[in-house]
Amino acid sequence: MTRKKIVTIGGGTGSFTLLGGLKKYPVDISAIVSMMDDGGSTGILRDELGVLPPGDVRQCLVALSDSSEMLRKLMNYRFDKGGLKGHNFGNIFLSALEKINGNFSKGVEQASQILNVKGEVIPVTDDDTNLFLQLQNGKLIKGENEINHNFEIEKIGIKKIYLNPRAKASKKAVQRILEADLIVIGPGNYYCSIVPNFLVKGISEAVARSKAKVVFNCNLVNKRGQTEKFDLDEYLKSINKFIGKDRIDFVVFNTKKPSQDLIKKYANKGEHLIEIKKNNLKRKYKIIRTNVLGKKEIEYNLADALLEERSLIRHDSEKLAKVLMKIVEQYCFR
Amino acid sequence: MTRKKIVTIGGGTGSFTLLGGLKKYPVDISAIVSMMDDGGSTGILRDELGVLPPGDVRQCLVALSDSSEMLRKLMNYRFDKGGLKGHNFGNIFLSALEKINGNFSKGVEQASQILNVKGEVIPVTDDDTNLFLQLQNGKLIKGENEINHNFEIEKIGIKKIYLNPRAKASKKAVQRILEADLIVIGPGNYYCSIVPNFLVKGISEAVARSKAKVVFNCNLVNKRGQTEKFDLDEYLKSINKFIGKDRIDFVVFNTKKPSQDLIKKYANKGEHLIEIKKNNLKRKYKIIRTNVLGKKEIEYNLADALLEERSLIRHDSEKLAKVLMKIVEQYCFR
Repeated sequence: MTRKKIVTIGGGTGSFTLLGGLKKYPVDISAIVSMMDDGGSTGILRDELGVLPPGDVRQCLVALSDSSEMLRKLMNYRFDKGGLKGHNFGNIFLSALEKINGNFSKGVEQASQILNVKGEVIPVTDDDTNLFLQLQNGKLIKGENEINHNFEIEKIGIKKIYLNPRAKASKKAVQRILEADLIVIGPGNYYCSIVPNFLVKGISEAVARSKAKVVFNCNLVNKRGQTEKFDLDEYLKSINKFIGKDRIDFVVFNTKKPSQDLIKKYANKGEHLIEIKKNNLKRKYKIIRTNVLGKKEIEYNLADALLEERSLIRHDSEKLAKVLMKIVEQYCFR
Repeated sequence: MTRKKIVTIGGGTGSFTLLGGLKKYPVDISAIVSMMDDGGSTGILRDELGVLPPGDVRQCLVALSDSSEMLRKLMNYRFDKGGLKGHNFGNIFLSALEKINGNFSKGVEQASQILNVKGEVIPVTDDDTNLFLQLQNGKLIKGENEINHNFEIEKIGIKKIYLNPRAKASKKAVQRILEADLIVIGPGNYYCSIVPNFLVKGISEAVARSKAKVVFNCNLVNKRGQTEKFDLDEYLKSINKFIGKDRIDFVVFNTKKPSQDLIKKYANKGEHLIEIKKNNLKRKYKIIRTNVLGKKEIEYNLADALLEERSLIRHDSEKLAKVLMKIVEQYCFR
């Protein structure tokens, strides 16, 4: 049997979690990664060096890396002093490789070799672009970082979300989507990590045309002021609209409740668990209701590159991968 | 036959040249590296992050690396814009590894693995120290970088050259010196790359005690205002004094003249070829007169990490290594 081809679409921590679990299975993984980040270390490097945003790619590389724990720690190490303060070593690494090659994607390939990456990490576009969001009242929010920190989006409503300048999909990304057995969308920050991928010319078209089964990994909590009122079906309506076709076949929906304490902690920040509100709706997608909740998240404390356990409402890498592999086994034949 | 153990003592470009040739032979190389640099990217990282100086170590790692040309280019890549301007990627890499490990030497070991280094690179000390030079008129020159750019040293004369705070030799450096079959000193900037190693407590003592044959690779040109009037025997007198014992067995002395153009170009900067002035002197060291001159140096242009050929009066890596290997074959038995 040939190895199944899984394409993930996302960025940031969501992709990190997803890929860390998937890489343990004998499948060909292509991680398509959002390229619109303009905040933090990534934003500074973009501004000062004129490079493409390395941050999301870095996280995916680390997730898929089979190299030593030390090399993974190094990639996530953040300088806390002097002129390098706030910079992430992995971002500097990717920017230097881009500069040497004059090409970000080529640098990512080389980084993949050095980090012994299982599968491939593909920037969704090679174009230098930014995310813009225009509200119904005409106000324009410029850049992913500002959008991420705006909490009036849902209240005022979105008139338009777009990239400027327009960006063309990487050829490799399109090719991998067309060849895929399974396409996995999310989890991740909806407007800042998921949606931007579908604004790149060629991605939605490829997903629409692909013969792959398409899974939407529903987030666990909504984002304050942005998707605060979304129920599951609202997400599906929205993502299918971005794809331009009712393309989602499966939704992975977590049924395991976090502790009341944790729910309360999140609720205090305006973040509530995502629900299935309409129980008798006739749907074109199959909802897989299952426990994909992480118990404790082990997180890199980026300030000093030490591992630190803290309680968060997050997906469990292994559980998520297991569900996806079941979908592959049961539904992906070609 | 067991592999011969060669220890090199130096730093900077001189060690880079020497090691690049030696690594092609089946010998165990331990490169002991000066740790007093405080200029450029290295100086900024020391000041801002409180790390040990990575620059000289980086050059030795690259010289001994068996990894791809790309990784070697990356290590020498220098950022030319923004907050990272002037910083060398390899220096940032070593500083991040030091920060993660809380220990520079441990970081160097890890870097050696990543770069697939043949042999080992050993910082001469793990102590944070600086080079000081006091002139005969009482004036104190602080730090290697200032000493390097002072051209009155020879004219006024040296009262004292020392480290502050005092530094203790790395245990591994002492051990490798004691076990060595051959110890190779230089080539390199005399007061800034060679001598500082012998100011570290334990190094001179170990060289004096070691049963190894000791070679002094004489530089090709003198340094303006510092060793401008030195002939070969002057260097030997000086280095033996730093060791505290007439310890040099062999001197490799280049006999091949560079082009008149190049000699003139150097002379205009006050840099003249080193000569053997006293021909009938009775010496305790054997002078090996031979052609070790590089034809064209291929240099990294650090600003853009492109290879660039330029004419320089430099040693030839391969010729130098060949002469040293002949010494090993003919004189090193144990």
